Amino acid sequence: MKGKSPKESHTIMNELVLPNDTNTINNLMGGRLLHWMDIAAAISAQKHCNRIVVTASVDNVSFQHPIKLGDVITIEAKVSRAFTTSVEVRLDVWAQNIPSGTRVKSNEAYYTFVALDQNGRTIPVPELVPETIDEIALFDGALRRRQLRLILAGKMKPDDATELKALFFGEQTS
Amino acid sequence: MKGKSPKESHTIMNELVLPNDTNTINNLMGGRLLHWMDIAAAISAQKHCNRIVVTASVDNVSFQHPIKLGDVITIEAKVSRAFTTSVEVRLDVWAQNIPSGTRVKSNEAYYTFVALDQNGRTIPVPELVPETIDEIALFDGALRRRQLRLILAGKMKPDDATELKALFFGEQTS
Amino acid sequence: MKGKSPKESHTIMNELVLPNDTNTINNLMGGRLLHWMDIAAAISAQKHCNRIVVTASVDNVSFQHPIKLGDVITIEAKVSRAFTTSVEVRLDVWAQNIPSGTRVKSNEAYYTFVALDQNGRTIPVPELVPETIDEIALFDGALRRRQLRLILAGKMKPDDATELKALFFGEQTS
Amino acid sequence: MKGKSPKESHTIMNELVLPNDTNTINNLMGGRLLHWMDIAAAISAQKHCNRIVVTASVDNVSFQHPIKLGDVITIEAKVSRAFTTSVEVRLDVWAQNIPSGTRVKSNEAYYTFVALDQNGRTIPVPELVPETIDEIALFDGALRRRQLRLILAGKMKPDDATELKALFFGEQTS
Amino acid sequence: MKGKSPKESHTIMNELVLPNDTNTINNLMGGRLLHWMDIAAAISAQKHCNRIVVTASVDNVSFQHPIKLGDVITIEAKVSRAFTTSVEVRLDVWAQNIPSGTRVKSNEAYYTFVALDQNGRTIPVPELVPETIDEIALFDGALRRRQLRLILAGKMKPDDATELKALFFGEQTS
Amino acid sequence: MKGKSPKESHTIMNELVLPNDTNTINNLMGGRLLHWMDIAAAISAQKHCNRIVVTASVDNVSFQHPIKLGDVITIEAKVSRAFTTSVEVRLDVWAQNIPSGTRVKSNEAYYTFVALDQNGRTIPVPELVPETIDEIALFDGALRRRQLRLILAGKMKPDDATELKALFFGEQTS
Repeated sequence: MKGKSPKESHTIMNELVLPNDTNTINNLMGGRLLHWMDIAAAISAQKHCNRIVVTASVDNVSFQHPIKLGDVITIEAKVSRAFTTSVEVRLDVWAQNIPSGTRVKSNEAYYTFVALDQNGRTIPVPELVPETIDEIALFDGALRRRQLRLILAGKMKPDDATELKALFFGEQTS
Repeated sequence: MKGKSPKESHTIMNELVLPNDTNTINNLMGGRLLHWMDIAAAISAQKHCNRIVVTASVDNVSFQHPIKLGDVITIEAKVSRAFTTSVEVRLDVWAQNIPSGTRVKSNEAYYTFVALDQNGRTIPVPELVPETIDEIALFDGALRRRQLRLILAGKMKPDDATELKALFFGEQTS
Repeated sequence: MKGKSPKESHTIMNELVLPNDTNTINNLMGGRLLHWMDIAAAISAQKHCNRIVVTASVDNVSFQHPIKLGDVITIEAKVSRAFTTSVEVRLDVWAQNIPSGTRVKSNEAYYTFVALDQNGRTIPVPELVPETIDEIALFDGALRRRQLRLILAGKMKPDDATELKALFFGEQTS
Repeated sequence: MKGKSPKESHTIMNELVLPNDTNTINNLMGGRLLHWMDIAAAISAQKHCNRIVVTASVDNVSFQHPIKLGDVITIEAKVSRAFTTSVEVRLDVWAQNIPSGTRVKSNEAYYTFVALDQNGRTIPVPELVPETIDEIALFDGALRRRQLRLILAGKMKPDDATELKALFFGEQTS
Repeated sequence: MKGKSPKESHTIMNELVLPNDTNTINNLMGGRLLHWMDIAAAISAQKHCNRIVVTASVDNVSFQHPIKLGDVITIEAKVSRAFTTSVEVRLDVWAQNIPSGTRVKSNEAYYTFVALDQNGRTIPVPELVPETIDEIALFDGALRRRQLRLILAGKMKPDDATELKALFFGEQTS
Repeated sequence: MKGKSPKESHTIMNELVLPNDTNTINNLMGGRLLHWMDIAAAISAQKHCNRIVVTASVDNVSFQHPIKLGDVITIEAKVSRAFTTSVEVRLDVWAQNIPSGTRVKSNEAYYTFVALDQNGRTIPVPELVPETIDEIALFDGALRRRQLRLILAGKMKPDDATELKALFFGEQTS
């Protein structure tokens, strides 16, 4: 299987915040955004794998700014690293207010997906070959994020998380 | 403001997995589940705060088992700790297959919410007073999870995360 | 087939009233509530039968109080009686206003369901074994409600409705 | 206020049964149909009242035939009687299978609505003036159905339901 | 195959404009209306063909008047001409404001559909036999509209569009 | 008001074809695609105008290839010309099949939008300044398309459509 570059899985999604996506003070509900992000990330993962994929995990996501009714959401997704049968997808989310034209970064997030064949069995995926400096940084950070996921899921002992320990000595998280 | 027990915010939600919630091999999409979990958690947070709440963050969630079309999802949510103007909500998710009657634990997760007044400003919330041994364990673990959130959001230096370090020396994660 | 108690089919559903569920003066539309009630009742019936079920009827439902945008709806359902291939499910619905914390009883209702096998043919269901005094009262009233359904559907002559006549001589309706 | 004929509120709605409206053996779920019926009936009531209306009750509805994915549903609604501030709407529902062209009567039902002004207070509605023999029969039967609703809601003693007693001595139910 | 009259495919759809169908100043979004029109037209085409149909084209649609939240939309559709394996459906759309009772013509449109068998292959459809003067005018205009479609899709040279040229010398467009 | 280039309104939307978007042989329904295209085009128009916009018209759209359940739809939109208070948006739509990786052009279309202020009155919009050869060709063709719209809406006499006549003497339509 030939490796692929991140730009081959680059996916952009724009959504309009409609009334049913908001609470009674017209703020976008977090779960609705998580749902859109999952669809954008799944499309990106599918472009990389040419396979049906299922969500395996979502990393910690924080919502910094309220997003309002009528705003335009832009979600950009691309695969940041491939493992044997799974991929990690990096997401960047912006919210644009139309009358003012202001656009703020709303979220960054990582979703992981497992690739499946038509019988629902896991199947190997193409390697990711990062090209730019940013893509290489995301690729390298993926090991650290994976260790944190495994520890939080009770599947790895903290002592074995050699990569993750870097997190606690001053490195950037992404 | 009088403190409240976790059972006052206890919320149960049952949902049926319908075609639009699934991918082409009939597995529930992760984003749809994250959306339902956010609604269940928001209802729980609102019961505790008697206020409109907005999602502030969701912690790492992993999806262990495929959930299928036609399954019944049960989500249980209750507030695990209150901070000054925010609450952490603990979620437990099960999936039940109807013909076989089997029911599997699908997820555990933590969502946090900020309470707002009618003008969208943050406002203090009642304290949480845990009662059972499990509730006290969740209450204690909340500090550790909060430190991890702050580090991942770039708002705390790892060195200051005194509670979190316990995570890396063999304690349970919840 | 072993009998089951009502608590084995006990189902709780919480829903948030969103803009699309309401009319232009922000009242929940009745049909949306009937839809949610059907899903909650179907989940309950499926837990009892371990079968796919289809709605056979809904009894008279009245809507006493307006339910508002942003309210939290709680629906509780449990099987009140099983017949040969069908079950009657009792529903209780509450609406909670978040800022005030007030919670009012909104509805009581009965839905009936027929159990089907994978080919869409009716199939016998387990007996219901009521345990509490309330459950026994619901179980006994089921015959009366069934006769009213049959008369209203033109399938029974009023003269043969021996149980129903009690309704017209002062008994409780549930 | 000038009286109106039933044809002024005559409303026809056609819907296509889509995947999300069905269960796992491709039968339309009853709650989805009740939701569509409520919208059709509300439109009809609004045409009669020229007011916002809210659902006050739905009478016993039975589902005789399975309706399948891809079928076309036709709902016809018209006001059958007006009371002081409310109306009763009669609904007839058909399901058409496209390849075969067969069309079966699926349901008959009665929904009642209360008319509200912009402040949510009840307000008088125009009289209904039935014109055809069928419309007069529906108009006359409305009193009987109203008494049954009041008894089932615990608002009338059975002994006072003089009109309803006719139901138990051989008259048609509609 | 026996020919059919337009009234055999006559389809009426009523929809209520709900919050999610509108933009932030409470106007119905055009795309939502195009979606409803497609469903109404597809039902009409299916009644004529007794086959699954897929949309082949929609002609130029203009939106003259804003339609508001809470309005009742009425869509009428009927087949205006059948070709070998396809049909043209004519749509008329009105919007009714409930408190005022005013009803305005919102749109006229033509959608075309291709009939398919269960394997997704095109299949011949019954002829349309127009009966009234209006139906004959729609039937005759269909050739002209078809030529415009073919030119716009790059499938016909303008010089060959003998029928269409009439459009540019003063005839009515429908 | 400063003019804007087409790239400032460039909008990309990716959507996954889900069960409710398809008919019973798993083909995307045309109306659903028209709805997505309207949202993508409205976002693009809003980016250009920094105003709320409403759909004024959609030009003839033809659907050449069936799009299947599970396909990824990519919609690209950008403003092709601005008039006094309105803009024309050009759309290009592709459908990608995931397992095969094949991607086909599905549609081209033009939607027009009118810009409104908060009181719903039309308001002037910035000029469009095309930059590339393709953008200039789209800009020039806009007059011709506008004349066709006006004729089809009965607002211009064919004899006055000087630009449009070019269409009938062999020019490309876009």
